[in-house]
Formats: sequence, C-alpha cells, structure tokens
Amino acid sequence: MDAEQSLEIDPNPIDPAAVAPAPIDVAELAHLLDGPYAAVRDQIRAHLPDHAELLEPQCRLDPDDYRRRVRQAVLDLAAAGDSVFGLPTAYGGGGDLGASIAAFETLAFGDLSVLVKTGVQFGLFGGAILQLGSTAHHDRFLADVVSGRLLGCFAMTERGHGSDVQSLRTTARYDADSGQFVINTPTDSAHKEFIGGAAVDARLAVVFAQLEVDGTAQGVHAFLVPLRDEHGRVLSGIRVEDDGHKIGLNGVDNGRIWFDSVSVPRAALLDRYGKVSEAGSYSSPIDNPDRRFFTMLGTLVQGRVSVAGAGVSSAKIALAIAIRYADRRRQFAPRGTTAETKLLDYGMHQRRLLPRLARTYALHCAQQALVAEYHDVFTRPDSADDHRRRALESRAAATKALSTWSAVDIIQACREACGGAGYLAENRFAALRADTDVFTTFEGDNHVLLQLVAKGLLTNYSSGFNDLDQLGLVRFVAGQAVETVIERTAVHSLVEQIKDVLPGSDREWDRQAGIRDRNYQLAMFRWREEHRIAGVARRLKRGVDDGMSPEDVFNRCQSHAINAAWAHGERLLLEAFADTVAAMPDGDNKITMALLCDLFALSTIETDRGWWMEHGRLSAPRAKAITREIDALLGRLRAVAVPLVDAFAVPPTALAEGLDNLAS
Amino acid sequence: MDAEQSLEIDPNPIDPAAVAPAPIDVAELAHLLDGPYAAVRDQIRAHLPDHAELLEPQCRLDPDDYRRRVRQAVLDLAAAGDSVFGLPTAYGGGGDLGASIAAFETLAFGDLSVLVKTGVQFGLFGGAILQLGSTAHHDRFLADVVSGRLLGCFAMTERGHGSDVQSLRTTARYDADSGQFVINTPTDSAHKEFIGGAAVDARLAVVFAQLEVDGTAQGVHAFLVPLRDEHGRVLSGIRVEDDGHKIGLNGVDNGRIWFDSVSVPRAALLDRYGKVSEAGSYSSPIDNPDRRFFTMLGTLVQGRVSVAGAGVSSAKIALAIAIRYADRRRQFAPRGTTAETKLLDYGMHQRRLLPRLARTYALHCAQQALVAEYHDVFTRPDSADDHRRRALESRAAATKALSTWSAVDIIQACREACGGAGYLAENRFAALRADTDVFTTFEGDNHVLLQLVAKGLLTNYSSGFNDLDQLGLVRFVAGQAVETVIERTAVHSLVEQIKDVLPGSDREWDRQAGIRDRNYQLAMFRWREEHRIAGVARRLKRGVDDGMSPEDVFNRCQSHAINAAWAHGERLLLEAFADTVAAMPDGDNKITMALLCDLFALSTIETDRGWWMEHGRLSAPRAKAITREIDALLGRLRAVAVPLVDAFAVPPTALAEGLDNLAS
Repeated sequence: MDAEQSLEIDPNPIDPAAVAPAPIDVAELAHLLDGPYAAVRDQIRAHLPDHAELLEPQCRLDPDDYRRRVRQAVLDLAAAGDSVFGLPTAYGGGGDLGASIAAFETLAFGDLSVLVKTGVQFGLFGGAILQLGSTAHHDRFLADVVSGRLLGCFAMTERGHGSDVQSLRTTARYDADSGQFVINTPTDSAHKEFIGGAAVDARLAVVFAQLEVDGTAQGVHAFLVPLRDEHGRVLSGIRVEDDGHKIGLNGVDNGRIWFDSVSVPRAALLDRYGKVSEAGSYSSPIDNPDRRFFTMLGTLVQGRVSVAGAGVSSAKIALAIAIRYADRRRQFAPRGTTAETKLLDYGMHQRRLLPRLARTYALHCAQQALVAEYHDVFTRPDSADDHRRRALESRAAATKALSTWSAVDIIQACREACGGAGYLAENRFAALRADTDVFTTFEGDNHVLLQLVAKGLLTNYSSGFNDLDQLGLVRFVAGQAVETVIERTAVHSLVEQIKDVLPGSDREWDRQAGIRDRNYQLAMFRWREEHRIAGVARRLKRGVDDGMSPEDVFNRCQSHAINAAWAHGERLLLEAFADTVAAMPDGDNKITMALLCDLFALSTIETDRGWWMEHGRLSAPRAKAITREIDALLGRLRAVAVPLVDAFAVPPTALAEGLDNLAS
Repeated sequence: MDAEQSLEIDPNPIDPAAVAPAPIDVAELAHLLDGPYAAVRDQIRAHLPDHAELLEPQCRLDPDDYRRRVRQAVLDLAAAGDSVFGLPTAYGGGGDLGASIAAFETLAFGDLSVLVKTGVQFGLFGGAILQLGSTAHHDRFLADVVSGRLLGCFAMTERGHGSDVQSLRTTARYDADSGQFVINTPTDSAHKEFIGGAAVDARLAVVFAQLEVDGTAQGVHAFLVPLRDEHGRVLSGIRVEDDGHKIGLNGVDNGRIWFDSVSVPRAALLDRYGKVSEAGSYSSPIDNPDRRFFTMLGTLVQGRVSVAGAGVSSAKIALAIAIRYADRRRQFAPRGTTAETKLLDYGMHQRRLLPRLARTYALHCAQQALVAEYHDVFTRPDSADDHRRRALESRAAATKALSTWSAVDIIQACREACGGAGYLAENRFAALRADTDVFTTFEGDNHVLLQLVAKGLLTNYSSGFNDLDQLGLVRFVAGQAVETVIERTAVHSLVEQIKDVLPGSDREWDRQAGIRDRNYQLAMFRWREEHRIAGVARRLKRGVDDGMSPEDVFNRCQSHAINAAWAHGERLLLEAFADTVAAMPDGDNKITMALLCDLFALSTIETDRGWWMEHGRLSAPRAKAITREIDALLGRLRAVAVPLVDAFAVPPTALAEGLDNLAS
C-alpha cells in the first residue's frame, strides 16, 4: 500500500447521529480479513484440530514429551505441505511468500511452540539457505528441508551479542592449505545462545561468523555446520547445552552451541554475497562491507513479518475469548431487581476491550499491507530498488514492534477482564501470555527495532543509512538543515497535500474539521510524526552545536527518536485501516468498520493528547470532545462486538470453550 | 498517616543544579525501608533459603510434588513461628498485626505459592475465625490453626458470584428441630470456586452462605463446615473438584466445592455479628443487614493489605534483577571503539527502569502508611470510629489496586529490559509474572475496588455508603449540590490549605512555583483528584436531571469514577513518599530520596499531562519543562540506581544469579 493512496479516501461517510450499526455480515467480513490467501488460511484451519491436544496445559508438564509432540506436529505439517508455502516449488515448496505468511498467521491460532519451530525450520533455516546460498546449496539441501528429513537451526545470536549482530565473535577462518573453513568460539560469551532446535533436533546449523581470509576480516557471513549425525549424536568439536525451562515456548528445544575449531568444506559458505576461491581470495558483488552485511540481513526480513503476524493472531484469540465471555457473564443486579448486568454492558468494560479490538483491526490491516509489499518486493526483485527494500525493512520493524507490544497489552487486559476464570490455564491465557512474551524480544528487540525505524526516517533510507551507528547518524543529521531532513521524509509530502483538503491553517482545522473526518484524523497522525522527526533532528543538531559528545547527543535523543518511530508506526496503522475501509463496498459492514476505525484513531489521539496539546495542535475543548465521541462510539459498537471477533474466524479449538461454561 | 500531615513538609530542599547525588548509605536506607518491623523481616529473610529450591523452575513441573513441597514449607513456617504473627499470643500467635504484614511482605521474596497458601491458612481461614467468631471458636480452633495441625480454607467466592459477594447463592437454613444448620448448593453455578486448599489439604472450611432462619433471609454469614476427615477423605455430602492447572500459583491446591444439604451444629455459625438461638430466633448487634454485611467484610481487610504488600515486593525483585543486569550488560560500541556501552547508560533504558523504580519506592511508602493505619485501627478498636474504618478499607482497596497493577507493568518491563536472558525461567521472571498475575483479581478485582474507592470519595465514607449500589449512589449524589459533595471530601481541605502556601491563583502557580517544589507537586495531584471527584458528581447530577435511567447515568460515569479513584490512589502515593523523605535526617540518602520522589511526581504528571492541560491546570511550556526535568533527573539518578535496589534487601536466593552470569 502506498501511503499517498490514502489521500484518495473520502471523509468518513457515517452520520454521527446514526444509531448502533445493524448486525453485520460476519462471513463477508471474515472473508475480507482473510484476504487474498483465504484458501491457504482455511487449509491451515482444517489441520489445526489435529494438534489440539497441544493446547491442553497438561501436555506442557513433561518438557521432553512436549518437545517430542511439537516436533511431530512440525513433521506432520511438512508432510501435509502446510508449512512450506514460502520455499520454491522445485524443492516441494509452495513458492508463494505471501501465502507462507498467511499460513504462519493462521498457525498462530494453534500451539505457539509448533509455530515457532515451524518458523525456525522453514523460515529461518530454510530461508537462510535460500536467500544467502547459491543454486548448489538449494539443490543439495532444500528438498530435505521442505520434507523435514533434515532438521536445522539458525545460529546467529550469541550470549555476548544479541541485538548487535555485526559484532558477533564466532570466527570462520579460511585455511587455504586444506581448503576448509575453521569455525571457532573464541571466548565463552561468544557461544550461540537461545538457538531453537539446537538442544535436541537440529542436525545442521546455519552459523553466522566473522569470516577471515588470509588474515583479512571480511565481516559476518553464514556457514552450514553439521551439529549431529543421523542418529542425533553430537559431532566432535561441537558442544551443546540445553537452555532448559523458559517463560514459554517450552515445546521448542532452545540451546547453546560452542565450536572448537570445527572444519567445514569451502562449500559450507552460503556464498550469494561473498565467495572464497580455493586459493583463498575473497570476492563479493557488494564492495562496501557494511552494505553487504545489511543486505544479507535484509533478505531475512521474513522473520519479522512473520512474528508481526503472529502477534496480531494472538491478540485476536485473547479478544475473541474475553469479548465472548463478557457478552455472557453477568455480575451485579441493580438493587431490587434480579436481572444481573452483562459485563460487556458496563461502560468501563467497553473501555477496556473495544479500543483494543479497534487497534487489533488496525494492526491486521497494517500487517496485510506489509505482507503485500513483502510479497511484491521478494517475488519481483528487479522491481524493487534499494530504497524500497530499506523502506520495507523499516515497515516490518515498526509493524513487528507495535504488533507484539500490543499483543502483550491486549492479552493481559483480556485475562483480567475474565477475572478468576481467566486465570485457569484451560482458558488459553496462560499459554498465550507465556508463549508470546518473547515476541517483543526475538527477531529484534522492539526498542532496537524502533531506533532502526527512526534512523530510516531521519535519513529517508538513504543508501548506506543502515551502517550508520549512533555517531554516524548524529553526524549525518547534524550535517544538514532540519528542513532538508524533513523535506526528504515521505510523510512531509503527505502533510503538505493534506493541507489542501482541509480548510485553512492548523488552528482552523482544529475548529472546523469534524473529529470523525478521516482526513482530520490522518492529518493529526502525520503532523505528529513529522513534528517528532523534526524535533529529533533539531535536538541532534543542537547537541552538536553545543559541543556535546556524539554519545551524549544520541543518548539525549534516544527516547525522542523512539517516540518518533512509534508515531510513524501508528500512522501506518491508521492509513492501512482507513484504506481497507475505503475499499469496502457500501453496507453495514463498511459502516461498522468506519466506526471501528474512528475508535482506533480517536482513542490513539486521546492516549497521546498531552503531546498534541503541548505542541498547540489540539485545543482543550476539542480534546474533551474526542473523549465524549469515544464514549459514544463504545456504546454504539458494543452491539456488534461479538460479531466483530467472530469475523476473526479463530478456530473453536483455539478458543476457551471452558470459559464459555464458566460464564453462565 | 493522616493526609494533613504532609502539609508540614518543607518544599524540596535540593538545589536543582546539584550534580549526581553522592553514593548513598545502603545499609541505612535499607533499615529505613524495613521500618518498625526490621527484626521480623530479618527473621523471615533468614528462613527463605530453607525453601529456595521451590524457586527452581523444575520443581513446578510435577504439580502434585510441587503442592506437597509448598504445604511442607507452610508447615515449616508454622513450626518456626514465622507465619502467625497476626494471631493472638494466647493461641501461639505473635499477636502483632503490623508484624504479620511485614512478615508477609518479606515472604513474598520467596515462592509465591508458599506465600498464598500461608495467607489462606493463617490470614483468611484463621483470620475469619478470629474476626467473625466468638471466644468459643477461638478456644476450640485457633491453636490448631496456628500450629498447622488443622489446615483450612476460605470458601467465599462462587462461580456465579465473585465480585458480588452479597449475592452469593449457597444457603444455610436453620432447622430448629435438629438445632442444626443445613448448608446447601442450590444451583450448579453456586458452587464455591478458586478456593485455595479445597482441592487437597483443607479439612475445615469457612463457608459464606445466605442464612435463613424460620423462613427469613438474614443475609450472608460464615459457617465452619468440615470437608475431610483426619485421613483426608472427603466427607459425605461434600463434592470437591480440582481447579487444575492455573497461569501461576500451581503450588496452591485451588478447588471447587459443592454442598448437598450438609448438616452442621448450631455452633458452626461464626456468630460475632449474628446469633441464632436454639429455638431459632436471630439476633445481631447490627440491625441494618447491609451494614452488618459490610462490617463483617471490613474485618477481613487484612487480605487486601497483604496482597498490596506482596505486589510491592514482587516489583522490588524484578527491578533488583533488571537494574543490576543493566549495570553489567554491555551492547553496541561506538564505531571505531571497542568499549561497549552499559545498557543502563542508554537514555531509553533509564526511561524504562528508573521511573518504575521511583514508583516502587512510592508504593513502598504508601504501603507502610497503610500498614500503620491498619495496625492501629485493629489493635485499638475502640479508638477507631466507623468513618475511620471505612477510610482504611478505601485506602487498602486503592493501594492494592495500584500496587498490583504496577507490579504487572514493572515485571513485564523488567523482563523485556533483560532481553532474551530474561526469558529464561531460571531468572525468576517466569514465576514472578505468572504468580503475581492473579493479584489484580483476587482479594477484589482492581476495577471493582476502585469503584468502591470512588464511592467512598463521593459519599465521604458516610455511614451506610457501603451498601449503596449503583442506583443508590446515583440518587445519593444527585440529591445534593456538587459543592456539598466536594466540601465533604478530605482532599478539598487540603487544596484549600495548599493555596496558602503557594502564591496567588492557579495560573500563577503554573508560572511561579518551581516544578520540583514538593508543595506544587502535591497541589497538582490534589487538584486532579478533587476536580475528578467533582466531575463525576456533576455527571451523575446532569444524568439524573436529563432524566436518564440510573443505570445509564452510572454507566456513563463509571470510567470517570475509576479515574478519580486512581488519582486518589496516586495522591496517597505521593503524600506517603513525601512524608517519608521529609522525616529523613539530612544527608546524601535524603537528597537521593528527594530526587527519586521528584521523579515519581513529575513522571506521573507527565503521563497524565493531557488531563491537566485539558483542564487549564498545566501550560504547554511547563509540560515540556517537566519532561526536560525528568530527563535531567534520570541522568542524575542513574549513578545510584544499583544502590537504590540494593536497599530493598532482596535476599540473594530471590535474585537471578544466573542472569548476572549472562550479563558479562
């Protein structure tokens, strides 16, 4: 979805005085949400019951048994062809990247250890071989990866270096005499850590290590290193430790790996972006080592797109449980009456659940826009220049951060909204919270990801922005006028254009535009984003002008940069939601979705209203009017809250039937 | 602590231009935090290592074994006299209520199933017999309760009625012919639910049921009902079900109980507030049935005081782990250097952890003020009139809600701040999050508790306010002028007095008072509370004047009422923190605590600044100045962050030593 499009949508067509929307067509809305991959999603939904027993809390009590069942579930999915939509058809895959994400999002309605182990085998392990290897690697390994005959792992993170991948310590020295690479763990903190599959199942590992050829460091490259023989025995030179019990995802065998000068053949180097000749000369299609490194990482963006989708699916499960429960559970009868009130009829309960429902719809729309862009960029690589690729990486990072943080908040709120009943493990909340917790950390710590987003905004994804460290960024931004920084950002042109469709000056918008006018809402989100980016640029320049050290300058700006990235992410959510609504055929569904989009936009503005007021962009009376409008929207949307979660089409096996009983 | 006292504190004495505080005296600060019960806390700390193995994640994998170990730990505590400080010395207890809470707060540094099972046996079960029974009950049972020879449970909640205790359905009909009560579960949803101890260990239950004497309903009363014989066999007429696996606290054997017309002798009625003669006539020292019911509930406030304290202790553990980790863990080196930066030196990391540290100190101070008031009211009952008792119940409800919600937020933020390392169960976060989750629900759902607080604020704890349902509250408030409502609130007089110590009008405060002037901060908190209470009163009246149904009126005000209660709770936090700082001897510790109190006050204002700006009480420039001041405070407090968590004196066994290794 190109941001400019969203200018074409007409102002919110709903009459504010309209009564609660008519009952919506759930099947039609569900089909809209399933989008272009409805068939794939249905295929996965049909198989989810096969492993429904993994959702029973009991099956988590014996970790070894749980791991065995999860591995078997992954193999079953492979056998059914349900987990390999993303790998090439030539090797038995589905050859459709968008479909692979849709499948992943739907698998997230089932046991999340199965989901993550599937992602490790086919996404990270298989994906690395596909993206970083050459045809010889594909021909030799991918068919076995697809079939599950060869289970592998993705050994990037080290204990000493997680977020800072470029500083990994594992070494891969080329020995020209033997024509082999020697993989080594030089210091204890350089061991691979949290590697899914390493503890038990993985026979082959994609190992990221610092390549050294003839005494010259060539940066991080990926190597295929055997860990176990076909009987599962750990090979000599390899030491493996089990990470043991974790907060969640205990069906995944995470482990640690040490390499003691392990020799692997020259062909073990995944050499798409860097080759070593037999004689020991290094060559790469990308001269700049930083650019090479970040290009390699960029090909692995699928992981973030996938986790973002899993976060949205998890939030859907929690909301489906809590809203259905609140529509059945009654508590407290007005004195002198016997009919107790449904939880969902309480204004506070609506406040707790419905804005989160609206946010989940917004996240769903943004996720589908991300998937469409990801599919297009990677399916038609020639069509995508570097700028577009970097913008995609930034969009994936922002969507992943907002999706996974929202999931944590939504699952917790939904658990509390179900009271003691929600505390019983049979109701899914236990596994849901525990298993999704690490989503905010893996595939990139959310705070680190938002800094990456901010860097992209400040540099407009300029070539080589990726390898700017904090100091480089400070110098880059300080080296140009703030206006230049702003004029280059995508959002700036949007703000300029939005001024044409809204009357007069900023102040006049505040007075004249209806708060449910979609263009007003979009203008507010875009203005906040642009203003925050400018604020960071100004702070960076001022710090340098004041002679502060670049470290201090960056540090003073860090939280502001992350706030700017957050505003950017929320702007993407609103645009995606607004575009989805605008594209819907007229009818009750569109009316309801427009109201839900209003609720997302206005409750987001309400939450951060202090900032807009601080910056003279929101008047006190208007801020209060927004709160009143939200209360009115809650009252109107309550009637369709259950149909709106039914449209998520979460399979019954994923829901807490036990809770339904507790409600009555 | 009486709110008026805090007017005596002098404005914050710290020079804003002062550099980072000098190293603080940790031992002295720890002693200050331990307060009047330091000896009791040390006694508990000394015994915590005895059950350290319960903190090993492995021990949670076999639920039956985990439950057995937890029960043994509770019996060991009883044998050591470490768990019964609250029960009378005549029966082997410690006879000191304040000490019992201090012991509970310290036990919360250990396994939380042990904590909760201890609370059930000695606090809820023993406490109910003590508070609701008469001397005969005490003489017959309390010695065995104290020694652990008689394990019991507290059977109040029913599946159909949790928050609405007054409506529970279990019946206790007096049969004059046999001189017995017949306890019965009339409908399936009337069974007792989530009863700790019911699944396995409890032999005797305190059962709350609707008393019916000679065809007349006398309201909810408590009865002693045997569940099992001395061999643990369930008695006839009793049906018990195991609640099974829960999100956390799986060392506690929660269960369900059904009663099939179980006969118990007349003496089974805990009859302090209601007696039934042999002939079958009912008598009570409290005529009004509602007042009687809420008086009985009021005697059980200890449970909320205890959970509030456990929430604070849990937050302390999480912060001690995350801040120590952030002071050791390094990630990312400025380009061209090798020295990587400590996490805690990043501005964003300080933003994530230090305001939560300040909030935890505020919660600690408010908890100690609550405990002091609780101890005084229940130790010298004659000194406490009903108004003071109701104010105590309200303070306990507000502190419990804010403490447990803060714990959930703080534990999650700390887990994320430790990245993947925090995801390993060995680091305590798994158990900490899972076990504390239900704190927001049991001993009163937090949202329901804050409504109780709001009701107290709106009625100034007027006699009988307790039994006002939503409609009664609407009529009560609508029946008087808003000014009357406000003038009667405690905070109103404070706002009036604060005007004397601050120059001129509200607007002038904004311009003239320093934002680090404690009186300015207190004035802001109090003004918000008073203004919100008035707002709710106005909404209630307007709704009635507009002819809305009382249900609609209440519903439209519900979230505003809860916001008012929240503001009240935060005002109590700031006053308690400010009073604690004011009472400290001059020195580096006081300087640091004053800075920390500023950080709490200003970051709380920053979070809700939109509200103050909306209501003309905070100017945009001043709001921005507050954010700048917070950034400055973070930079200054970073240097003492580790000593500040060391002062919590969390025993090493409760901390994640494993994480310390991962940091390096």
